[in-house]
Amino acid sequence: MRKYELEQLLHNVKHSDLTIDDAVKQLESLQIGDLGFAKIDNHRELRVGYPEVVYGEGKTSEQVTEIATYMQAKGQNVLITRSNDHMYETVVKACPKARYNPLGRTISIVNKAYQETSSKISIIAAGTSDLPVVEEAYETAKIFGNKVEKIIDVGVAGIHRLFNQMDRIREAKVLIVVAGMEGALASVVGGLVDKPIIAVPTSVGYGANLGGVVTLLGMLNSCASGVSVVNIDNGFGAAYNASMINRL
Amino acid sequence: MRKYELEQLLHNVKHSDLTIDDAVKQLESLQIGDLGFAKIDNHRELRVGYPEVVYGEGKTSEQVTEIATYMQAKGQNVLITRSNDHMYETVVKACPKARYNPLGRTISIVNKAYQETSSKISIIAAGTSDLPVVEEAYETAKIFGNKVEKIIDVGVAGIHRLFNQMDRIREAKVLIVVAGMEGALASVVGGLVDKPIIAVPTSVGYGANLGGVVTLLGMLNSCASGVSVVNIDNGFGAAYNASMINRL
Amino acid sequence: MRKYELEQLLHNVKHSDLTIDDAVKQLESLQIGDLGFAKIDNHRELRVGYPEVVYGEGKTSEQVTEIATYMQAKGQNVLITRSNDHMYETVVKACPKARYNPLGRTISIVNKAYQETSSKISIIAAGTSDLPVVEEAYETAKIFGNKVEKIIDVGVAGIHRLFNQMDRIREAKVLIVVAGMEGALASVVGGLVDKPIIAVPTSVGYGANLGGVVTLLGMLNSCASGVSVVNIDNGFGAAYNASMINRL
Amino acid sequence: MRKYELEQLLHNVKHSDLTIDDAVKQLESLQIGDLGFAKIDNHRELRVGYPEVVYGEGKTSEQVTEIATYMQAKGQNVLITRSNDHMYETVVKACPKARYNPLGRTISIVNKAYQETSSKISIIAAGTSDLPVVEEAYETAKIFGNKVEKIIDVGVAGIHRLFNQMDRIREAKVLIVVAGMEGALASVVGGLVDKPIIAVPTSVGYGANLGGVVTLLGMLNSCASGVSVVNIDNGFGAAYNASMINRL
Amino acid sequence: MRKYELEQLLHNVKHSDLTIDDAVKQLESLQIGDLGFAKIDNHRELRVGYPEVVYGEGKTSEQVTEIATYMQAKGQNVLITRSNDHMYETVVKACPKARYNPLGRTISIVNKAYQETSSKISIIAAGTSDLPVVEEAYETAKIFGNKVEKIIDVGVAGIHRLFNQMDRIREAKVLIVVAGMEGALASVVGGLVDKPIIAVPTSVGYGANLGGVVTLLGMLNSCASGVSVVNIDNGFGAAYNASMINRL
Amino acid sequence: MRKYELEQLLHNVKHSDLTIDDAVKQLESLQIGDLGFAKIDNHRELRVGYPEVVYGEGKTSEQVTEIATYMQAKGQNVLITRSNDHMYETVVKACPKARYNPLGRTISIVNKAYQETSSKISIIAAGTSDLPVVEEAYETAKIFGNKVEKIIDVGVAGIHRLFNQMDRIREAKVLIVVAGMEGALASVVGGLVDKPIIAVPTSVGYGANLGGVVTLLGMLNSCASGVSVVNIDNGFGAAYNASMINRL
Amino acid sequence: MRKYELEQLLHNVKHSDLTIDDAVKQLESLQIGDLGFAKIDNHRELRVGYPEVVYGEGKTSEQVTEIATYMQAKGQNVLITRSNDHMYETVVKACPKARYNPLGRTISIVNKAYQETSSKISIIAAGTSDLPVVEEAYETAKIFGNKVEKIIDVGVAGIHRLFNQMDRIREAKVLIVVAGMEGALASVVGGLVDKPIIAVPTSVGYGANLGGVVTLLGMLNSCASGVSVVNIDNGFGAAYNASMINRL
Amino acid sequence: MRKYELEQLLHNVKHSDLTIDDAVKQLESLQIGDLGFAKIDNHRELRVGYPEVVYGEGKTSEQVTEIATYMQAKGQNVLITRSNDHMYETVVKACPKARYNPLGRTISIVNKAYQETSSKISIIAAGTSDLPVVEEAYETAKIFGNKVEKIIDVGVAGIHRLFNQMDRIREAKVLIVVAGMEGALASVVGGLVDKPIIAVPTSVGYGANLGGVVTLLGMLNSCASGVSVVNIDNGFGAAYNASMINRL
Repeated sequence: MRKYELEQLLHNVKHSDLTIDDAVKQLESLQIGDLGFAKIDNHRELRVGYPEVVYGEGKTSEQVTEIATYMQAKGQNVLITRSNDHMYETVVKACPKARYNPLGRTISIVNKAYQETSSKISIIAAGTSDLPVVEEAYETAKIFGNKVEKIIDVGVAGIHRLFNQMDRIREAKVLIVVAGMEGALASVVGGLVDKPIIAVPTSVGYGANLGGVVTLLGMLNSCASGVSVVNIDNGFGAAYNASMINRL
Repeated sequence: MRKYELEQLLHNVKHSDLTIDDAVKQLESLQIGDLGFAKIDNHRELRVGYPEVVYGEGKTSEQVTEIATYMQAKGQNVLITRSNDHMYETVVKACPKARYNPLGRTISIVNKAYQETSSKISIIAAGTSDLPVVEEAYETAKIFGNKVEKIIDVGVAGIHRLFNQMDRIREAKVLIVVAGMEGALASVVGGLVDKPIIAVPTSVGYGANLGGVVTLLGMLNSCASGVSVVNIDNGFGAAYNASMINRL
Repeated sequence: MRKYELEQLLHNVKHSDLTIDDAVKQLESLQIGDLGFAKIDNHRELRVGYPEVVYGEGKTSEQVTEIATYMQAKGQNVLITRSNDHMYETVVKACPKARYNPLGRTISIVNKAYQETSSKISIIAAGTSDLPVVEEAYETAKIFGNKVEKIIDVGVAGIHRLFNQMDRIREAKVLIVVAGMEGALASVVGGLVDKPIIAVPTSVGYGANLGGVVTLLGMLNSCASGVSVVNIDNGFGAAYNASMINRL
Repeated sequence: MRKYELEQLLHNVKHSDLTIDDAVKQLESLQIGDLGFAKIDNHRELRVGYPEVVYGEGKTSEQVTEIATYMQAKGQNVLITRSNDHMYETVVKACPKARYNPLGRTISIVNKAYQETSSKISIIAAGTSDLPVVEEAYETAKIFGNKVEKIIDVGVAGIHRLFNQMDRIREAKVLIVVAGMEGALASVVGGLVDKPIIAVPTSVGYGANLGGVVTLLGMLNSCASGVSVVNIDNGFGAAYNASMINRL
Repeated sequence: MRKYELEQLLHNVKHSDLTIDDAVKQLESLQIGDLGFAKIDNHRELRVGYPEVVYGEGKTSEQVTEIATYMQAKGQNVLITRSNDHMYETVVKACPKARYNPLGRTISIVNKAYQETSSKISIIAAGTSDLPVVEEAYETAKIFGNKVEKIIDVGVAGIHRLFNQMDRIREAKVLIVVAGMEGALASVVGGLVDKPIIAVPTSVGYGANLGGVVTLLGMLNSCASGVSVVNIDNGFGAAYNASMINRL
Repeated sequence: MRKYELEQLLHNVKHSDLTIDDAVKQLESLQIGDLGFAKIDNHRELRVGYPEVVYGEGKTSEQVTEIATYMQAKGQNVLITRSNDHMYETVVKACPKARYNPLGRTISIVNKAYQETSSKISIIAAGTSDLPVVEEAYETAKIFGNKVEKIIDVGVAGIHRLFNQMDRIREAKVLIVVAGMEGALASVVGGLVDKPIIAVPTSVGYGANLGGVVTLLGMLNSCASGVSVVNIDNGFGAAYNASMINRL
Repeated sequence: MRKYELEQLLHNVKHSDLTIDDAVKQLESLQIGDLGFAKIDNHRELRVGYPEVVYGEGKTSEQVTEIATYMQAKGQNVLITRSNDHMYETVVKACPKARYNPLGRTISIVNKAYQETSSKISIIAAGTSDLPVVEEAYETAKIFGNKVEKIIDVGVAGIHRLFNQMDRIREAKVLIVVAGMEGALASVVGGLVDKPIIAVPTSVGYGANLGGVVTLLGMLNSCASGVSVVNIDNGFGAAYNASMINRL
Repeated sequence: MRKYELEQLLHNVKHSDLTIDDAVKQLESLQIGDLGFAKIDNHRELRVGYPEVVYGEGKTSEQVTEIATYMQAKGQNVLITRSNDHMYETVVKACPKARYNPLGRTISIVNKAYQETSSKISIIAAGTSDLPVVEEAYETAKIFGNKVEKIIDVGVAGIHRLFNQMDRIREAKVLIVVAGMEGALASVVGGLVDKPIIAVPTSVGYGANLGGVVTLLGMLNSCASGVSVVNIDNGFGAAYNASMINRL
């Protein structure tokens, strides 16, 4: 339930367009939905603006499907991250509207589309290997109703590729920069624009990359000031943040 | 030089309120100012929205004063972070408007005040020991023209102290959460609001705190989605980000 | 052999209800049982209160079965942790009373039930993915004769789920808090109750979680005072400790 | 305010031994005491069993004195950890009952002694260099009303020194084991007793000791089951935990 | 070629029992044997006392067989560590005397047995899971001609198991202590004997064991003085060292 | 397009050997080639001396083949590192000139051979297990037109093997030293020659080798001055550097 | 003694311009000079091209002076790194030609100037705080006879400052890139030039910079291929390498 | 009390040269000497061959003096490591035979000299900065009665300095190799001799040396087999081990 829906409901009660009994029933759905192995936070959309997102890793396809079915029945949009082929096949049987992005490993079920924002989120990525993270971010931003644009393979080893895209980049309201290795792209972009940047380190690299920790720490030590950072490969978190900012 | 000033200048040229010669002279000041030991990026305010901020650590009081004097002569606001008593005494002789915040270790020189924003940044801190970082963030947000509020000593060990402040917290447009130790405050706040949160880990703690690295990594692993993170004790960076968002 | 059994035996000798010869035979069983590849510490239950627990990882199904058979023959309860399906199938042939918890990966053989305690251990877990650790702790506490309760999916990202459970939590004599990611749940619970808390970090998380090390260090740096910590995913150790405390 | 005091108060109201007005006034003191730079959690003793403990590090002598004075005025006991000579000299002027333990760096002000427990906490330490942590734990346990005993310099390099003390050790209800270097003492004691053990790693050692991190991780990997761990040098936390258990 | 063999050869030349031509041929074999993918150090046995040992990991079964055949042709003993079933099957076809220890993953080919030492190496291990390392050490010590004894499953969690074996332990000339987890066994043994101890940390453990690094660092920080350490799981290196000492 | 080719083209335009239209078409190929999932940097050879090298890891065989086909069509040499058997089979169908080095995991397609240098790069390796890195370096140096020599299995444990090769080593213009374990070979060679050394740490080793990080840090701390270091197992990067130096 | 000097000497002997006795005396000076606390490697210049450089840290001013005097007596140039004011004052009394660079902390004594190279080394630095490392590199390159140029404060946060200098940068034969924080400057420069780059990470930064380790690892993971790396703050090592390359 | 002294005492009792009463008194001194802040392990010399060594760090000069006086009164030799000037001045007043080695920071009091061994320990060190560790090892070996030799400044950057000393090195029965930086000296020596080597990493180095941890791990990964390792800067431990071996 979104804020304006709650206001509408109360307005209806006030103007007798809704009986108190019916209002109570609808409001009762704002409880925690207890599925035994999980407690669904129905109140969340009202409180923080978005419904719960399902983190697929470590859950069975059956558990995920049960959660998705429950949320769909409440009329909520459903986003499942870190899913896989088998999970999708199980979910789509119960929720035929489910759509799978195999590169980003997300399942999206849109039951009640948000109106698309007029302002734009740009997702900028250094290399081809960063694409799975880009896609996770893209799907997240999309289901939350944002206009989104992807600008990929513009790493600093061939910096003219980035400069060619600066006009498009400058049009965005908030930027997500996805990079592996030393993560220099965040610093370079940060020095060129006046928009908030959310940097996502990826685990792309080899040797002493330490699974992305080096990229993560590099981005946190960025010499550019306007950069904040989320966890390694956390495209979802970056898009969640960007979405909050884009809707301000 | 801010964007609207540039537009004004070009407008004046167009309408013959400014000779081309004078315009050229003013625009020439958009070069890099070379002080020998440093190149001042005069173009920066136009490009990313704020003038350069001077990082005091590792510079002599004389170098800092020279930079401050140069920037003041250009009519820019000056913010010096990681300064100290001696640095302030040197700077204030050359720039009498300089003001010192000893807890936050900042020197501020306001030559051209920004108009204060109507929306608000809230800086929320877990404990008394986090105050130096709070103050650095506060001064940064202030000189960039933001309305700012401090809410301190509301760590999760006595969580009712936080809940008492939720109304004030919910009024802000963007939140800075400052905490040491395990950094749980960021997660708890993140689960309660629908605003972007910039978390600042502090080096407060003892034993296996590893100088704030544990707090940093904890915040990056936050179970709440709306949290992005800046470097340890980096109050300046958090406020810089928050300011960008607050002005959107 | 438990303490009261030893006292009973000596009492029987004193009152001639047991011949010295028979007593000697029974006491001889308090030696180390040497199976070649392992030395079973029969004396342990008398010394530290519980029989040896078998750590299944790195042992063959045959070795584990041999140990279980040996201990069963001594009339001891048997708990095997970190087991697997194949191990269970091998054990249950030799010890038909064996019961398997596939989520917790434990095999339990109750030969001589302890009397259940009147006081209660509560196991509180942040998320669904923490369930394997919860189950290991639960089975351990159970076989040692404790009353145990599980309260799951109450992580701090939706803190009202935790508050809904505070009454049940306050009834326990000792608490086990299981959480991954930043481990904030331990701190929040620690600030709300006057009971000892044993925190178990789990390896749940992604990116810079470092296999649970971040959670571990976060819990050790908890801003709440009443928290002590065991190793990552060590549900057994937590329950072992809690059981010692619960029986005080 | 302790629990029985609250019950007494309510009882008095019920039997008209206290006017409602007076009860309200007393109960109002259960608010947070706001000193500007700190919020004192007056409610804490009722909620978790002990009043707030003041962590001296990073606070000025003046701040600590102000807090101590405030708490003393409420009739609470005061414990200040990580204090120093100068801090004590400042505090004792305002609170003449203050007592200083220079080795443990604690200041204690007993305004309302707890009744001493009949059961005992034993603090066992490996070497002479661990004494500061022992003393911090000792003072903490003392002010919380526990019977406490210190058994020092019984490290495993001369294990007969430990065995000589086993009878005394076995009498305790809960054990605190303090050790540096490889921390083996916790494992050895853990294999010999049936009592909960709280292990405190100390930063004693040299070379690759990494400031106590090696000891910390060693204790967490202890092959003995009944060991839980607190942060490096955290004598206070260990005693706080032990005290909770000792009072069960 | 061993030292006494070289002396014999030169003696034979001197007393004309060997022609210079034949001596030259034999001495020429003291060159490096170049197999293309490897250079066999034939001179090694003369220089450091033992022939080269073949580290199987990362080599193909064919490469290992070629090396073994080459060394056998020179009449040298062959020890292959970190081998596997397939490697053994390949080697044994070419070298029928090859013997495989599947637990220790070693292949031994004795072409010229050393005379067994009268003094003894004791290999002491904490638990059943340490057996692979014990076996690697055992086979290494054996092929180098040492009398060796294994004493296993005597970890400090049941320290009487160790004390039962002290007489046998005290008979050895040099000790190898193999342990995982916190590695306390090395410290406890080190405090009880007057013999050099070579400690081998194993990667046995879970949670924050970090693949044996915690054990390694714990052993290096041992509070007992007579302990030196080799790499994680390096049973070979420990036995190589012990053998050098045992032959002094 | 190489520099001299560009000069030739412009020369041809000047002397009317090439129409301006044709020149424009050829120069247009100096754009970025956009394949959708990747942007090929055609301008690179002109700018930094070599065409782009394709890093195979994390790309599909189809993507790699598409890139190779594109570059071949431009007449460029193609080097694919971190490839595999399947990738080769796919590439060779489209580009029959492709040659595979299975040990070094490289695919090379020479369309326009560079003239071989007269000066020499020597690749020196400590052991047999370092060969994959040696081969990657060798293929890289070869396709860039260098004379190259491999000197393998000369680790410091049998240092006379190295001294036997010093004459060959001294003939090189630049040295690549490949080693695992403690990486001492780089220091020893560095103390013996007057040529720049590029050290490549390999992930060869076991126990506390930490996947090559120990070797990497050891080489960076080399007591010999003329050593610079590239990432773990980065034979390509070392050869790329060496090639730049060899062509000076 | 340099190579051509040795050749001259032998030439003189051949043509009887030098008696054998005198030649022997001169050649004897190619021994190790034993000062008791140090062995001076007189042979080094002949072997690796440069005389020994004195690392001042951890040596007393007296020891350094004794070494400097000894080397000066041999007619060698002397370079002392990591020196300090007091060390200089002691050295200059014995060696009046000594010159001190307080920022770079080097003492240089030129007894026999090398002819300056025609090709150039460029030292490029990101910020003002990197200057000490720049100066150490500059003095090293100078005393070894190189033409050197410094280009400072061109970090990527204001990337046009770098682009303004590209022409000068492209003139160099070899580049040293000095940067702290995330070290992105090395990657950006590496993508723009066709010259070997030696990157020097500096310990400049704060928070999770880990004393330069983050910069070091970032540079090793650079997405640009032509970058090799030396130790943190090791300006000397970078210049030593660059000098070897510049003289090729 | 040494073993032969105990045997003599028992022999005297047997042959009535000592009354049982006097024997009892002497044997009673084999108890732990309890000084309040420390328990002196008088039994130790008999058990492990040497009396306790006093680790000065973290003890007051007074405590150390009290221990020294106590041990001297028992007729034992006293070795105090990690002492300092002030500690020596305090000790020497009570124990005039005390001798101070300021470089090694040891205080030695010889009350009952051991007979010097005929076999020799060689201490080999890479550089001048390793001398403090060399001296600690030297003094330890000396007071335990060993013949010892120091061979310093023979690091691998000028490897001929080492080869010049090989004859002396080969005469030793056991070797201590002391080195900082990458620690390559241990590997090189290990490849050249047939004697056990105890490697001591030192904290000498800069940049990414991590306080000696890199050297430590490098030595543990040595490609030479006969190397075992003690803690960073632990000259005492190395000499203690070497002494045990030298006396075999």
